[in-house]
Amino acid sequence: MGFEGGQIQTAIYVAGESEWPIAPEAWEARAQEVLEPGPFDYIAGGAGSESTMRANRDAFERRRLLPRMLRGNRERDLSVDLLGTSSVAPFLLAPIGVLSIACAEGELEIARASAATGVPLILSSAASHSIEEVADVMGDAARWFQLYWVNDREIAASFVARAEDAGFGAIVVTVDTPVLGWRERDLANAYLPFLTGEGCAQFFSDPIFRSRLEQPPHEDMLVAAAAVLATFPNLGLTWEDLDWLRAQTELPLLVKGVLAPDDALLAFEHGADGIVVSNHGGRQVDGAVATLDALVAVRAAVGPEATVLVDGGIRRGSDVLKALALGADATLLGRPYAYGLALGGREGAEAVIRQLMADTDLTLALIGGRSAGELDQSWIAASS
Amino acid sequence: MGFEGGQIQTAIYVAGESEWPIAPEAWEARAQEVLEPGPFDYIAGGAGSESTMRANRDAFERRRLLPRMLRGNRERDLSVDLLGTSSVAPFLLAPIGVLSIACAEGELEIARASAATGVPLILSSAASHSIEEVADVMGDAARWFQLYWVNDREIAASFVARAEDAGFGAIVVTVDTPVLGWRERDLANAYLPFLTGEGCAQFFSDPIFRSRLEQPPHEDMLVAAAAVLATFPNLGLTWEDLDWLRAQTELPLLVKGVLAPDDALLAFEHGADGIVVSNHGGRQVDGAVATLDALVAVRAAVGPEATVLVDGGIRRGSDVLKALALGADATLLGRPYAYGLALGGREGAEAVIRQLMADTDLTLALIGGRSAGELDQSWIAASS
Amino acid sequence: MGFEGGQIQTAIYVAGESEWPIAPEAWEARAQEVLEPGPFDYIAGGAGSESTMRANRDAFERRRLLPRMLRGNRERDLSVDLLGTSSVAPFLLAPIGVLSIACAEGELEIARASAATGVPLILSSAASHSIEEVADVMGDAARWFQLYWVNDREIAASFVARAEDAGFGAIVVTVDTPVLGWRERDLANAYLPFLTGEGCAQFFSDPIFRSRLEQPPHEDMLVAAAAVLATFPNLGLTWEDLDWLRAQTELPLLVKGVLAPDDALLAFEHGADGIVVSNHGGRQVDGAVATLDALVAVRAAVGPEATVLVDGGIRRGSDVLKALALGADATLLGRPYAYGLALGGREGAEAVIRQLMADTDLTLALIGGRSAGELDQSWIAASS
Amino acid sequence: MGFEGGQIQTAIYVAGESEWPIAPEAWEARAQEVLEPGPFDYIAGGAGSESTMRANRDAFERRRLLPRMLRGNRERDLSVDLLGTSSVAPFLLAPIGVLSIACAEGELEIARASAATGVPLILSSAASHSIEEVADVMGDAARWFQLYWVNDREIAASFVARAEDAGFGAIVVTVDTPVLGWRERDLANAYLPFLTGEGCAQFFSDPIFRSRLEQPPHEDMLVAAAAVLATFPNLGLTWEDLDWLRAQTELPLLVKGVLAPDDALLAFEHGADGIVVSNHGGRQVDGAVATLDALVAVRAAVGPEATVLVDGGIRRGSDVLKALALGADATLLGRPYAYGLALGGREGAEAVIRQLMADTDLTLALIGGRSAGELDQSWIAASS
Repeated sequence: MGFEGGQIQTAIYVAGESEWPIAPEAWEARAQEVLEPGPFDYIAGGAGSESTMRANRDAFERRRLLPRMLRGNRERDLSVDLLGTSSVAPFLLAPIGVLSIACAEGELEIARASAATGVPLILSSAASHSIEEVADVMGDAARWFQLYWVNDREIAASFVARAEDAGFGAIVVTVDTPVLGWRERDLANAYLPFLTGEGCAQFFSDPIFRSRLEQPPHEDMLVAAAAVLATFPNLGLTWEDLDWLRAQTELPLLVKGVLAPDDALLAFEHGADGIVVSNHGGRQVDGAVATLDALVAVRAAVGPEATVLVDGGIRRGSDVLKALALGADATLLGRPYAYGLALGGREGAEAVIRQLMADTDLTLALIGGRSAGELDQSWIAASS
Repeated sequence: MGFEGGQIQTAIYVAGESEWPIAPEAWEARAQEVLEPGPFDYIAGGAGSESTMRANRDAFERRRLLPRMLRGNRERDLSVDLLGTSSVAPFLLAPIGVLSIACAEGELEIARASAATGVPLILSSAASHSIEEVADVMGDAARWFQLYWVNDREIAASFVARAEDAGFGAIVVTVDTPVLGWRERDLANAYLPFLTGEGCAQFFSDPIFRSRLEQPPHEDMLVAAAAVLATFPNLGLTWEDLDWLRAQTELPLLVKGVLAPDDALLAFEHGADGIVVSNHGGRQVDGAVATLDALVAVRAAVGPEATVLVDGGIRRGSDVLKALALGADATLLGRPYAYGLALGGREGAEAVIRQLMADTDLTLALIGGRSAGELDQSWIAASS
Repeated sequence: MGFEGGQIQTAIYVAGESEWPIAPEAWEARAQEVLEPGPFDYIAGGAGSESTMRANRDAFERRRLLPRMLRGNRERDLSVDLLGTSSVAPFLLAPIGVLSIACAEGELEIARASAATGVPLILSSAASHSIEEVADVMGDAARWFQLYWVNDREIAASFVARAEDAGFGAIVVTVDTPVLGWRERDLANAYLPFLTGEGCAQFFSDPIFRSRLEQPPHEDMLVAAAAVLATFPNLGLTWEDLDWLRAQTELPLLVKGVLAPDDALLAFEHGADGIVVSNHGGRQVDGAVATLDALVAVRAAVGPEATVLVDGGIRRGSDVLKALALGADATLLGRPYAYGLALGGREGAEAVIRQLMADTDLTLALIGGRSAGELDQSWIAASS
Repeated sequence: MGFEGGQIQTAIYVAGESEWPIAPEAWEARAQEVLEPGPFDYIAGGAGSESTMRANRDAFERRRLLPRMLRGNRERDLSVDLLGTSSVAPFLLAPIGVLSIACAEGELEIARASAATGVPLILSSAASHSIEEVADVMGDAARWFQLYWVNDREIAASFVARAEDAGFGAIVVTVDTPVLGWRERDLANAYLPFLTGEGCAQFFSDPIFRSRLEQPPHEDMLVAAAAVLATFPNLGLTWEDLDWLRAQTELPLLVKGVLAPDDALLAFEHGADGIVVSNHGGRQVDGAVATLDALVAVRAAVGPEATVLVDGGIRRGSDVLKALALGADATLLGRPYAYGLALGGREGAEAVIRQLMADTDLTLALIGGRSAGELDQSWIAASS
């Protein structure tokens, strides 16, 4: 087979009892039991009424796969090559900030799980472990770096350069978070992790950032954390600024957070090598368009050759395959692996990843697919 | 920034614990805890099966925002100018009768909150504090007066004249309530606040109304209240009567309660300066069209220049922005501020208002908007 | 006003406490408390999964009223004239069998309520009180007779003749019940009321039927009841048989149970004076089309002049008005009055009827209607 | 009448109390009470989020029957003739593996129920009783054999030959299960019945399979069961392989698991005599198209003469009739009879079958149908 769908399934059946939850909803429920409300809600919640989160899921529910039979697909290739980076599965690990709230060594543990599974990690610039620490544990394993486009160009450029030096294979710049969304769970909990210095590792380890401080972070964490937070708001950015960012690195550059077809075109015009159709998992704009709906319009606008990823509500293999069939080159897996970290560190995250790999493989096999790249709209049933 | 979205959010995060509820649903649930069933249901309920209330909300859920990125919108202008009246935010405070059932000094408290926030109040003619008392506490702050078009022209004219004298900037005449709707919660509770004289302050303070009584209100409250209620039924009104009302004042005149495009045209033909697309928060006709759906048709009929506001189901910033994108010049906020009054008087109401301002500001920032007036249908995703 | 909407509402408000439930759902819930499961489920239930019952309601929910304002409708005429019979309201009381299971004198009590309110009763041929007993208590009040088209032509003809003699103003022949539907609640309860002789009064009082028995009913009730039940199955009927029935009476003849436009045309071709678009309240075919949807297609087929009534899911004034706007000349009210009987006999039923009259009147007033007959599709909002 | 709808109904009413559950949901709930979670979930569950199971049901809910009246259908013919096999009702008993987990003599008991009712059984190749044992208890009663297309051609051919020898009237080859789907309930329970030898009877009784083993199954059940499981994965199959299978038997050959119109055409091109539109009851691909939706497209592709059956979500008579009206020649009944076995062996299963027969008969009578074969899209209401 393509990879390990059947083996994982068999291993679970013969284990006599399942070590981990299986359903994504069960992972979330179990994570809620082990985490405090603040951290759990920070991970699980979204903006406003969380209507965008619901819309993301509903867009998957509305689309139905049209399986094909007897396609002779004993060999399947689920790998994807994205701007020079390979993943064994048609998904990558989405950048999630402050994973230390799920698990003490959050970023290191997910980095280890990424390296072990062959599913590249997109490391967040709001991580609790530095670019270099993460690179250390990953060795040669593929990885990308996500950039929150802070309002200090020198710091942004430093992050990019450090990532390039540390062997990250692409820069993913997030454009949908020039300010934080109105996240009602966090506001009700009065919970913002960065205030204690968590999620600030890229900054605290950065020479430019440190040069901005009067004293090292550990001497006054509150001041240092406030300085980090002060770099975030960046509503002045325009597409012309993307030209500047483009010039900072030789690495492929992806723009994450695109929803409008016109923005997708602008991204490529200003030097992006790829885009991620994303609404930040529903954490920024309540009531925003579902990403799967946006994907269809974006792909129609940018044509078949452009590199387009999508995230938001990916929970099962069928979600991955629907996204591929509707035009995505790959998807990103987000919250589920954070629940895996919460329940079992690297091992928990790896279980989540391998379960989704197995589900994706089995489901691809069962719809008659031979490769991730082969899927197109003919695999989606006409609506009735 | 435009105004205070980020600051409010930050203030809540650093407070360590949130003083007020955040989610509109939490405000309502908490208000239900502190109010008696009669007053709570009077505020929260609607006509019949409350199908119109559900439809109002569903119409927002169905429309999805299409955010734009990197629009360089550090400066945002959320203010609106409506027929000479400015609001710092693209919403006003809807007229709600008998706020004294939520909070003893209801109208005074909301007037103070209005003045403090810069979001104009539309004072109800069914208030428990008089036009003049409210004007006193508001000073120069912008305010409008809502007229229940009572069946005694002299009283109606007196209300309008008093409002004009007291510095109210527009008259909003409600046309959807010539009789009360079939409100099942209130009927089950046998609750109608006016019977005890609450909500009668405009009448009891009115020289014309008082001249109709044989003795002052306080000597026989029941008789006086009955006299007030007797002025309400007014099903004989026609659009020609609007010409008469138009002639009573120099102030801008808005007609509230329009749903049909033809009625919108009639309102302007008969002298209205603006309309409010409204189904009275679902309190009058069960099964009526959702206001957001009606707005789209009305705006198409009246053209881009006419002043059109909308209310009904506005709960979050995304609701405000969807309404603007679909053709509203501004929206009205209703029940949520009454819950604020119930929980904390002026401070509670102000918290509700500032939360919605912050949410609206942040959400406008995140969809790439630079001003309330800029939004149009291109910010709404094509349905899929 | 047209009639008593406002007065009823006022009376409830000033009563200090409501004597009866208000919401139709509350009437049903209260009836469930006072009735045994067998009788309650017999009244409340439907065929199979009760999908037809849900569809009936959903069809009302999907259509939205488009109210018009300032129409000068102080005077409203809610009465309807149907083939020579007047009702003060645009609804009649649907034929319901064996009302004795809701209330000992069920048919007499509802007859009294009908006469008192001016809303004609359609007496069932499966009643527990005879045509003549019901006529006695109704005096000159308008009433129709519903015929279950039994498989013994002489009995059917006798019923029709007796109704004509007893002053009933029309014959409503039910065509959707040649056998009983698969009613899962009743089957689970093993409950069929007729087995004990209830619901057999028309038969037991009929000379033709009695001549078929070897001994009077009271001497062996089980045998007599079985003889009644044996007359029901009648799947051999065709439209040609309607010509025969047409010839049995001078009275107007309505065919109840039509859903397909072609059947509506056949009914009129074979002598019907009117039809009732009905799926028997969802009690016969699970998964059948909703009556409001069927109504639209039927009215389009038969043209504007034909007499077309509709039932199924009518609960509130807005339901009545939507049905009128979509082409019905009148509607039938069913289960709700049976719950009224269960809770308070004639007084309970009268309360249900008067509440619906009040709701209908107020809602007609509020949508700007002047008469029941005036409503058309312009009062329904275009779907969005 | 056509068959026994009315009699069954009457028998239940007069029984005074119903021996069995009536609603399909009640059968399932009661089965859940008597079975262990492993077996119950194995029967009741589906792949992934069970979205396909929900879609199957929803597709029935969306389509609405349009009953016709007075069609003179006292005589109804519910029987179907399918490739030479007759069923008294327009459904057959779907192949379900390992019925021994529901009831010790599962396959024998359902075989007896099949013979008693005249509704043919499709015996699974994953049964716990052999082809020959089942044939023994069925005598001359009609039956088909379902083939899991194992990866050992000699075993597959042997199964087919044995079925032909044992009087089975058709071969139904399942093409949607070349690997097991990602069934989350079973994975969470770590439950796979075959590991203990259950469901392996066709293999253990097969001379070819036994010749593959070093020792008889009973000497090392685990090894033997593993050998069975090893024959299942068969992703190399193509439509050309169907030519080979076609050549193995004179019996009619049906292909089960077709969803795409193109696959339906391929099946007939490669020698199939019929197809079963199926998504395996939602057990294989999560998010797959609903079978009723697929049926419409498939029937349009293959034309009116091809033999097309459908399964998935059939619970009530109205489901059967909707499927017929939308193009099916017959349907398959699955999980419900397994619940019948769980609650009462043959008698329970027979009760389930007879209830569905009665419901189907009554509902066909009530929509004016005269035969199963007569129904077409004119019996489905236009969507509104």
